[in-house]
Amino acid sequence: MVARLTPDQKDILMDAAKGLEAPGETLVEQVKAFFDSAPPLQRSNEITQKLDQFIQRNSSPSANGEARRIVCVTSGGTTAPLEQRCVRYVDNFSSGHRGATSTEYFLKAGYAVIFLYRRRSFQPFCRSLPDDPLLECFKPTNELNIQVCEAYSEAVKKAIVDHHTAVAGGLLLKLPFSTIFEYLQMLQMIALSMRCVGPRAMFYLAAAVSDFYVPWKDMVEHKIHSGSHILDVKLVQVPKMLSVLREDWAPQAFCISFKLETDSNILLNKADTALGKYKMHAVVANELSTRKERVVVVTSAEKITVKRDKRPSDNDVENPLIELLSEKHATYIEESGR
Amino acid sequence: MVARLTPDQKDILMDAAKGLEAPGETLVEQVKAFFDSAPPLQRSNEITQKLDQFIQRNSSPSANGEARRIVCVTSGGTTAPLEQRCVRYVDNFSSGHRGATSTEYFLKAGYAVIFLYRRRSFQPFCRSLPDDPLLECFKPTNELNIQVCEAYSEAVKKAIVDHHTAVAGGLLLKLPFSTIFEYLQMLQMIALSMRCVGPRAMFYLAAAVSDFYVPWKDMVEHKIHSGSHILDVKLVQVPKMLSVLREDWAPQAFCISFKLETDSNILLNKADTALGKYKMHAVVANELSTRKERVVVVTSAEKITVKRDKRPSDNDVENPLIELLSEKHATYIEESGR
Repeated sequence: MVARLTPDQKDILMDAAKGLEAPGETLVEQVKAFFDSAPPLQRSNEITQKLDQFIQRNSSPSANGEARRIVCVTSGGTTAPLEQRCVRYVDNFSSGHRGATSTEYFLKAGYAVIFLYRRRSFQPFCRSLPDDPLLECFKPTNELNIQVCEAYSEAVKKAIVDHHTAVAGGLLLKLPFSTIFEYLQMLQMIALSMRCVGPRAMFYLAAAVSDFYVPWKDMVEHKIHSGSHILDVKLVQVPKMLSVLREDWAPQAFCISFKLETDSNILLNKADTALGKYKMHAVVANELSTRKERVVVVTSAEKITVKRDKRPSDNDVENPLIELLSEKHATYIEESGR
Repeated sequence: MVARLTPDQKDILMDAAKGLEAPGETLVEQVKAFFDSAPPLQRSNEITQKLDQFIQRNSSPSANGEARRIVCVTSGGTTAPLEQRCVRYVDNFSSGHRGATSTEYFLKAGYAVIFLYRRRSFQPFCRSLPDDPLLECFKPTNELNIQVCEAYSEAVKKAIVDHHTAVAGGLLLKLPFSTIFEYLQMLQMIALSMRCVGPRAMFYLAAAVSDFYVPWKDMVEHKIHSGSHILDVKLVQVPKMLSVLREDWAPQAFCISFKLETDSNILLNKADTALGKYKMHAVVANELSTRKERVVVVTSAEKITVKRDKRPSDNDVENPLIELLSEKHATYIEESGR
């Protein structure tokens, strides 16, 4: 928030894209350019340590002789900063409902979960609570004491107990991100840490990842001032990291990506294309208006429609979805061991 | 999240700015173009009703024969959507700390407060709590019950009691916004509703308002797909509404705006310019790195440095700041009555 942009700085902003604009640049070069341009991840040593401890704890065989499966669930949208001292950024909105809900069912299915989530997006076990649960779910009993409001009593208790049980029990590791840089740096760290887990690892990539970004090194440092009548922001494409994850970072892991469209006519074709292009083990295809009712799990062999059950409890579409993916993952592990 | 952009749609996006680009367009025309381009505000009748009730309740003279003063505190950053079904938007980040803290001190000083805040920004009485207070401040005592963690016990109780007392007592009305369209539409509604309050009304404009936006009518409806390697977003300047608020919407109200810079050398000059340009009664000048320690209140007559007191309690810079502004407002009311 200082000094107006000089004409040079404006040129830098306008031309931020040029580095990656060159046609014919390979994916490897694009990926390198992305990570080279990224600011160093804060507290990366601490994150690596947490990851290693979590993975080690969940890798020792249990009573039945089998080690626990570990899934990395990504959730929420990523931001692309427009300034280094980030005041302005382009956000790619996602509530994080799918990721938070799926995490609950993965835990129920016996997985240990690394929950890589956008700060302030939905948290596991909390999705039925209001936006601001502290102020909306509690009330004073007198000037010194508080209590949970009747209407939220069960939901609040369940959220705190279930969340605490999973975290304190070492089955849920929560890692927050905001920017596209943090997200991809952390995803890479998680993938590399999970290599030792082999086929017991799953990636369930439900986050809404920005398609475009401004390379960090070319970004203006200070707030862009309103010098002219028009702000022209040019963003370049984020390299498609799915195939890098699949082939390079975590070649043995079971990988699930998502395809969301508003047009059902093109949805399954798009899912098929993603399946082939990124070599995913499955793509979960969902349409915006019906995504909480049904999804289609697309694999190279079949397309399975999964519908929300109308049972009174646990009636989320994620319940049968995670059951199905857990079965497919079990088969995958079995086949990998042959 | 449907269909690729046609070349026409791309042209629309690129040329979204043209409507307001014309040099020489008057502020009145710019303001009209902004509001004409805005999507209709959701639940506007409900908001008007709440506002009218709140203002009426706080306008009847109290025991000492004087009616309460009413301040509209704006807080947090606004977003500028890039798509009508908003997935992507440019965000203008602000935590909302200044607005939330100031609201507490305005209530303490006897004001009724209309808190116009960005969804999920800091809330009054909650700023000393962690990001996710429900999950971080409570723990299970057994499988069925919960309690506040010792470390947060006092802070959590105080937050809930003080917040509830202000809201239930009819002294705090909270109105959330996300987009620049919602923010300016609601600010206008509040200003018009508060006209009847005359000089007892104050506007304390601490929100970080977007400088640029894409006019709604020219925006693409669906998600912008990554068809090309570059995303080129052109945004036009948001008309400067401060002078419209001051001269047209709320000509009798006492108006305070903010100036934040990272460079202390230009700060006071910029505050002076804003004071003259927008005819504010005072501009609060603050530097990014020291904004929680001291601010300078700039009026046409003087520049008063306000510093954070080191007393153990209520030791925010907003404490002496609101005291000073409250005094100045009292003088303004007195002078208006002559």
